[in-house]
Formats: sequence, C-alpha cells, structure tokens
Amino acid sequence: MNRVIGVMDSGVGGLTVVKEMLRQLPNERIVYIGDSARCPYGSRPREEIVSFTMEMMRFLLTFEPKALVVACNTATAAALEVVRSVSPVPVLGVIDPGARAAIRETRGKRIGVIGTVQTIRSGAYETAIRRTRDDLEIVSFPTPELVPLVEMGWPKAAARPVLETVLEPVRSAEVETLVLGCTHYPMIADWIQEVVGPDVALINSATETAAELATLLTEMGLLASMSVGFREDDAKEAFPDLRLFTTGDAASFRAVAERWLKRPLAVEAVDLRAFAR
Amino acid sequence: MNRVIGVMDSGVGGLTVVKEMLRQLPNERIVYIGDSARCPYGSRPREEIVSFTMEMMRFLLTFEPKALVVACNTATAAALEVVRSVSPVPVLGVIDPGARAAIRETRGKRIGVIGTVQTIRSGAYETAIRRTRDDLEIVSFPTPELVPLVEMGWPKAAARPVLETVLEPVRSAEVETLVLGCTHYPMIADWIQEVVGPDVALINSATETAAELATLLTEMGLLASMSVGFREDDAKEAFPDLRLFTTGDAASFRAVAERWLKRPLAVEAVDLRAFAR
Repeated sequence: MNRVIGVMDSGVGGLTVVKEMLRQLPNERIVYIGDSARCPYGSRPREEIVSFTMEMMRFLLTFEPKALVVACNTATAAALEVVRSVSPVPVLGVIDPGARAAIRETRGKRIGVIGTVQTIRSGAYETAIRRTRDDLEIVSFPTPELVPLVEMGWPKAAARPVLETVLEPVRSAEVETLVLGCTHYPMIADWIQEVVGPDVALINSATETAAELATLLTEMGLLASMSVGFREDDAKEAFPDLRLFTTGDAASFRAVAERWLKRPLAVEAVDLRAFAR
Repeated sequence: MNRVIGVMDSGVGGLTVVKEMLRQLPNERIVYIGDSARCPYGSRPREEIVSFTMEMMRFLLTFEPKALVVACNTATAAALEVVRSVSPVPVLGVIDPGARAAIRETRGKRIGVIGTVQTIRSGAYETAIRRTRDDLEIVSFPTPELVPLVEMGWPKAAARPVLETVLEPVRSAEVETLVLGCTHYPMIADWIQEVVGPDVALINSATETAAELATLLTEMGLLASMSVGFREDDAKEAFPDLRLFTTGDAASFRAVAERWLKRPLAVEAVDLRAFAR
C-alpha cells in the first residue's frame, strides 16, 4: 500500500503537519499543495474558501492518493464537509484532532482557541468540543496578525511586540489550555509559549493531526508497509517521499520549507486554474 | 445511537480507562467486567489469557454493545487479534493508543515501557511502535510487582520502597518517555513520576485509549448523541451510565472503584463459567 497522502493548505502553514507526518509516519509518501498565491484564506468569504479548497482537492486527486489531509484550519472549518462529500478517499481535517486533544489534555474547565477570523467566526472548535463535552467554557480569539508574520518569516525581535499585543486578551482570559487553531502557529509555538507563560498547555493541531492520521490509517489497513527495500532502492528515487507544489513564488516557499523541515527540497509551481469548475 | 460500550479487564486496572472515558466521552454508557477472581493475568500462559478474555467478550456481547475495549495490556497483547476476529463490533485495545502516543510525544530516540511479564515478553509495544518508526530504541522492563500493590490498595508509604526497587533499572536506562504499559499503573502515576523524576514524560495508556476511542466513534458515526433529555430523564435511572461487574469480591472491587472514580457505585457479581466454551 504505497499510494501517497495528499496534503492541502492555504500556504506554508500545513508544513507543520507535514513535519509531524514525516516524524510520526516516516514510511508514507506525501504530495503537498500550498495555495500561497491566494494566502491568507482566513479573511475571505466562506464560498471562496470552499472553491479554492476544492481546486486543491482536484489537483491532489490526480496523484491517486489513499487519503487527503486538509492541513489548514480555515479550509477545514469552511470546506471539510464539502470535500468529504465528493472525495473518493478519506479526508482528515485539523480541527477534530485539535479539539479532541484539548479534551484529552485539559484538567480544568476553560479552553482557549486562537485562529484566523474565519476559523474563530465558524465556531468549529466549539462545535467539535461540545460534541462530547458540553460543560467546558471555550474562549476564542481571532489572531489573524500571526499568519503573515509566519508566511513572511519575520525574525523574533520584530514578531515579539506583535505577539504581546495580539495575545494580551488570551493572557487576561487565564486559560489552562490553548489550542493553536491555525497550522501556521506551531512554527512560532515557542514564542507564543513565552508570551502566554509556561502554565498554559499549548495544543498543537499539527502534532495531533499526524497522530490521528496514524490511528486512522492503521485502523483502515492503509498504513504504508515498512519495506526497507522500497525505501532504499531506486523506486524511492523515482518517487521521493515528499513532493511540494505551490501556486505562489517557488523560491520563497522553498526557503520557508527548507528552514522548517531542515532538509534540501525542490518546490514545483502549479496553476490551479485548470482545476476550477 | 445509545448502545453501550463494553470494557473488559483482568481486575480494577481498566477503571483508569473508564475514568478517562467518563471524562472525555461523558455521554456514553459503559458496561465493565473485571475478572478480579483470576487477576493478575500477567504471569499466566497466553492460551489461558485468551480463553478468559473470550469469556469476558461473550459476557459483554449480551449487552449488545456498539464497541468493545480491551482495557488491559496483558489481554490486549495476548488476545486482541482473536477477539477482533470473532467480535461482531469494533474492538479497541490499549497498546496501539499507548504506542502511538509515545511516538507523538517523544522527541528523543529512546522509549521505555513498563508492564507485566506477559506484556513485556510479547514485545507488543515494540511491534506497535516499529510499525511506523523503526529508528527508535525501546527498552522494556517487566514490573509485575506493581499490579497487586494497586489491586490491594497499598498506601504510599508501603508502596514507595517497592517502587524504588522495581523502577531502579528504568532510572538507570535514562529514558525520556516512559509508557505505563499496564492499565493499573495510572492509579499510581504520581508515585511513579516521583521515583523516575520530573524529566521523564509518562504515557498514560488509559488517557490515550479513551482519546482514540473518541476518534474512532466519531469517524465511524457511532458517537452517542448529546441528548440532554436522555441524560436527565428517567431513562438514565433505568440504565445508568456505568454498570460494573466483577468475578471477584464485589465489596473490595467497589472500594477501589469508588475511591478511583470518586462517586458512589454499585458492583454486581458475575460468574463467567456460563460463558466458557
């Protein structure tokens, strides 16, 4: 079972999920599409996000994947159900894994969520958490300022004052658990932790999504076989374990990807217009 | 979808999984069987463990459950595949969730596992971890002394010297992550943490099993509906959210269960001989 897993995101944020997939599921092959040309999705109307996400899905389906991951909270909140309803293969979003991890980790009664305007407005985390726990208080904060900061690779010194300002309401809310409800945020998790303080448990939806993917692939009998032969021989050369596509500038995508994944990478440009309906 | 979830264990250890199910899945109804009369399973031959586990499965199936949980590492290692092959409903064990959580949490290269003689001898954690990661070193330690200590409810002062002795090899191995590979152990997790030190991340398979159960029930569309009416009205009285059965002494089972679950509980006696083949 060596079919690929397709991963889609509005930009580079989903690479946090890819990094965790490479760590937790190192035998899987991944095809990634980042729609950087139209990033951020977070403040767009829902219909547009659905339409863009469907284009990414159609592109990924040309690789005949065994599963798809919507590695973007905004796209998951807006489009997961639509993608699921038409995809011929299982589709995992990032919100359910993050919500379940928040329930698993919290020992208190108040969970905080930060995310894009669209993610927070959708109430997707509240819905997912309340499906099993209706006694928890969920306090949500739109923090859209953080996405461009990651996409553009701001240095810490420049980012710090933005973080201090944006996260001030989170600090005041005194949450015990804080969901990083945007796949960009794990890239600056250390900085966020510094600002909110060491007593707040951060929930990294990238880590959790890769873990749930491992669970689901195992349960569905879709896990890649651990074939050393396959990994070492030239089949590996012919189809590397990670192919990256972007609708935006390949060079700047590559810079972020190489810094985050700590390896040399090729990035291919793609035009999604051929996949519009 | 208000069918029960059946949970089976060699004794009271599986109550750690029940406690997490009540916390993470408070709308589910649970039927639990603890085979305390024949506990511990951990040093018995594999064939006997399979036979006892099958008896518990047949007993639980009389409640027409929607899913079964083998909440015992020893029974999971010995009998999960057999139970799965004959059960008409999905069956979740405790080893895969613990193994996947160890992979999710570890940032190092060495994972420790403690469990009963049978669990450690089976190599079940190694197998589960190596299915996705073959680059991790897994060091396993049989610590069967800890089960009777929990079953009999030893006080901390008496338990401490035993823990010091039994966990000395774990300390020497300098693991970063330690899997509590026996569902009894979370009941003394605080004491274990004190002995191995604060830098070792403990993996609680009870917490992880309840979390994976939440994932699987959601993905399979088997989650209990959040019906306040059902939970509050007399249907709740007619079928409480937790029924406990034991093959052993109901009074001492009840004492441990009430202390662990922090609520008044009824415990029913059952004879599994009617379910032997």
